[in-house]
Amino acid sequence: MSNSNPVNPVNLDKAVVFPELSILAEQKIDLKTLLTEQRIKNFLIKNSPLYFSYATCLLNKEIVDTLQLLADEQNVINRYQALLNGQIMNTGETRKVLHHATRSPNTNNFYQQQLSRIRDFSASVHNDSIKGYTGKKFTSVVQIGIGGSDLGPRALYTALKRYVKKEKGHLPLKARFIANIDPDDANYILSQIEFETTLFIFVSKSGTTQETLTNLNIVQKTAEKFGMPRSAFRKHFITVTGKGSPADNPENFLTSFYIDENIGGRYSSTSAAGATVLSLSLGYDIFQELLIGAHKLDESAKNPDIRQNMSLMSALNGVWERNFLKLPCKAVIPYSEALSRFPAHLQQLDCESNGKSVNMNFKPVNYQTGPLIFGEPGTNAQHSFFQKLHQGTDIIPIQFIGFAESQTSYNPQYNGASSQEKLNANLVAQITAFAVGKEDSNQNKTFSGNRPASLLYARKLTPEVMGALLAFYENTVMFQGFLWNINSFDQEGVQLGKVLTNEILFEKESSKNQTSSAFIDLLQNLP
Amino acid sequence: MSNSNPVNPVNLDKAVVFPELSILAEQKIDLKTLLTEQRIKNFLIKNSPLYFSYATCLLNKEIVDTLQLLADEQNVINRYQALLNGQIMNTGETRKVLHHATRSPNTNNFYQQQLSRIRDFSASVHNDSIKGYTGKKFTSVVQIGIGGSDLGPRALYTALKRYVKKEKGHLPLKARFIANIDPDDANYILSQIEFETTLFIFVSKSGTTQETLTNLNIVQKTAEKFGMPRSAFRKHFITVTGKGSPADNPENFLTSFYIDENIGGRYSSTSAAGATVLSLSLGYDIFQELLIGAHKLDESAKNPDIRQNMSLMSALNGVWERNFLKLPCKAVIPYSEALSRFPAHLQQLDCESNGKSVNMNFKPVNYQTGPLIFGEPGTNAQHSFFQKLHQGTDIIPIQFIGFAESQTSYNPQYNGASSQEKLNANLVAQITAFAVGKEDSNQNKTFSGNRPASLLYARKLTPEVMGALLAFYENTVMFQGFLWNINSFDQEGVQLGKVLTNEILFEKESSKNQTSSAFIDLLQNLP
Repeated sequence: MSNSNPVNPVNLDKAVVFPELSILAEQKIDLKTLLTEQRIKNFLIKNSPLYFSYATCLLNKEIVDTLQLLADEQNVINRYQALLNGQIMNTGETRKVLHHATRSPNTNNFYQQQLSRIRDFSASVHNDSIKGYTGKKFTSVVQIGIGGSDLGPRALYTALKRYVKKEKGHLPLKARFIANIDPDDANYILSQIEFETTLFIFVSKSGTTQETLTNLNIVQKTAEKFGMPRSAFRKHFITVTGKGSPADNPENFLTSFYIDENIGGRYSSTSAAGATVLSLSLGYDIFQELLIGAHKLDESAKNPDIRQNMSLMSALNGVWERNFLKLPCKAVIPYSEALSRFPAHLQQLDCESNGKSVNMNFKPVNYQTGPLIFGEPGTNAQHSFFQKLHQGTDIIPIQFIGFAESQTSYNPQYNGASSQEKLNANLVAQITAFAVGKEDSNQNKTFSGNRPASLLYARKLTPEVMGALLAFYENTVMFQGFLWNINSFDQEGVQLGKVLTNEILFEKESSKNQTSSAFIDLLQNLP
Repeated sequence: MSNSNPVNPVNLDKAVVFPELSILAEQKIDLKTLLTEQRIKNFLIKNSPLYFSYATCLLNKEIVDTLQLLADEQNVINRYQALLNGQIMNTGETRKVLHHATRSPNTNNFYQQQLSRIRDFSASVHNDSIKGYTGKKFTSVVQIGIGGSDLGPRALYTALKRYVKKEKGHLPLKARFIANIDPDDANYILSQIEFETTLFIFVSKSGTTQETLTNLNIVQKTAEKFGMPRSAFRKHFITVTGKGSPADNPENFLTSFYIDENIGGRYSSTSAAGATVLSLSLGYDIFQELLIGAHKLDESAKNPDIRQNMSLMSALNGVWERNFLKLPCKAVIPYSEALSRFPAHLQQLDCESNGKSVNMNFKPVNYQTGPLIFGEPGTNAQHSFFQKLHQGTDIIPIQFIGFAESQTSYNPQYNGASSQEKLNANLVAQITAFAVGKEDSNQNKTFSGNRPASLLYARKLTPEVMGALLAFYENTVMFQGFLWNINSFDQEGVQLGKVLTNEILFEKESSKNQTSSAFIDLLQNLP
């Protein structure tokens, strides 16, 4: 009953190799005996510019071979190719899935056209051809957007802001972000800026996102309070939106850069939704290096051999951990302060893509899908929740991310080692501790070991490496969706909340949900 | 076999009511039928200044009654009282547990003495009696610390920074934090400040925390590069440390404020570890209001009636969800941008306290302990991982936090409602959606409902309310430790990583762990 039709795959538990994997999951993988130097050399994948070690995962040769059969049977590489070819892969919404096209070189598609427009626009801002309404240069940019228009661009800006070159001729704009409908968010950010020298980007595909529209309104009313005439708004506000959306209006915005329905918010960091704010704040060159890195990983993800394709290996290992070892969570721990907001982006990317209960034909599945993704940077996390990861009653697999070198060059020796050496000593010590543990006559000082981890690493967190990391995770999530036979590209689970919110705000009392009304009463009638 | 000795309680699964709770867990709690207006009014606890609704938890009268029996049997209130009375509750390390004493009014203990010293010191900084080495006023403060010296104070500063009153006569210092040993952390923060006008706080109880000592060194070397003579360090560096630690040295530091071994890092936000940076940056008055709020919750936590004690109800509901409904994670979602870093603090507080596998007598337990805590602010989280919470294959209980009013007063109407009204409509809509769900002929648009949540709320996130929230969680975690019969106050799980790190950095090759060495090779020998 093998499955050869890429658009009509089988459920994971109907795969021919599923029973075999279930049997394999009963054997104990003892890392304490398996973990030789040879294994650490062998269980390693290089997809330039990244390296991926799976030596400390709960895998052996037989399991990896069987996971390869699963990948083959579920046709994941053919489906990826179908996606790249523009087949309708988001079947629920009858849409293509085209985020890879934003970083595909030597093409001139819709996304690339937007990118050149963004390149030209940021050049004009950086060389002061485009200035604020009082004639001052722009020195800061505020992205107004939520979800995919916020978490990805914010994580990437945080990751790469140390590369802004003040001496390079362009004027980098300091980036800030307003996302939450909580008025404390917008009000605080606006208290930190000068309106005269700030460019605002309104980001909403539909042009109607409640949070983003409301925040645009607060920003514009506050700008007016601080002296900006309404007639000057057009000089300070641009938009990233769908063509023809209510926001696509040259009367209100200096310019519009376009996104379309074939790229979901959580996959939009390399589209205009990320390109605009990142080109303005980091420079277009840096953004382009990020695209190059992402494309490299997209290319490597085409390899059907899981031992050569880190995105696929990570996806299969994730399914192994989730469905066969029954582990419901996954930690992502970057040993890099620059990646401090990257786990929050990955949490969205993974949980919104694969937190699903129905298959491609809208039938409930009988197995677990996307795990809970969470994380904070190391070494900070060691002083926080690592106690639970080491000695808690659950096993939580960890994906570590590390770099041989730091981004900034000042890295002095102190107490016999540099900070970067200490950072990496900590990283390696943790991988070792989780894998091999430690016996102790005091049970409170015992570490069971055999707690699985993988390590993704590169020489340095450059823009290219950042792009590669982003694409690695996007492709891993995509492959897992294929393996689980779910649609990773819709998000019906966010709809009910929207409907109920509008009911509370705009319907007559009699047509409101009674639970909602009772809770609103609680909040509104505090003594 | 009931348990009457507070210092020698039984394991959870040996409690007399354990089998009864296991049987109760087999019945289906259907919120769709149970959730009446009456239930929403009844399943509500007020412990000033907070309110706690458990109407949308998977509880009914019988379960609550039985959980009350469990609390009584496990002697949780007596044990809390013993802790307040200074009994040795951290048995592994033979220490008292005294964080409640930091906010107990009308006493003059060690902690209160430190607080008055901090009050006087910040007054001297704010009235410019204490200035930088070039005679300029201090305008910024940098906390150098990690774990409990970082996450709690940072979360509280983020929560309350909108209350800084510039007109109030004192000079508030803008706070920044350096935690990670990654040199990119310190280097970036230092690129944002002026050394002449910055006061640095070195926070480490032992005075020997690797990250914090290393960062102190980077800060001081960089200060020197920017022209501060070493002889001026004493004017710019203060310390919060243990009395007699290597850092408690008036030759190197302007002054030392003291912390001691009876308060663990994750419980230290209301001690000098939080008080110093928060008094300097927010003003001592604001910090004192926070202490008042925390003390109010500490008092209410003494009530043995779970229907009157929200910390206890939340703790018991957590044990119900974890051990009887078998749910391994818990989301904390504050509908408040000001609380954006509070979940990271709670993640440390809970996972480091209760991520344990041995009981008070160091014997392995046969049941699950502390869950995985994670969260991001709403409404942002709605556009991120809420898809998984609504439609994923796991059930993840949620603790929502909400406020009737925003912190800042500018909250204009737009499209028929203010931002705060929209924020709370979203909050209530989500609680409703998780509880009652929605049927649909399309399974992809179906919401199962019966996904449990609780709601913690107050009029406004004031300093007092912030203190109450902090103490609510501290006390909930403490009660859960009592119920599980584990020691919530040590952290042996962080030791092995430290040992291995030092081995990698400072031992001869031959005495190093071979796994560590092989991984260090990978990172160091990139082509």
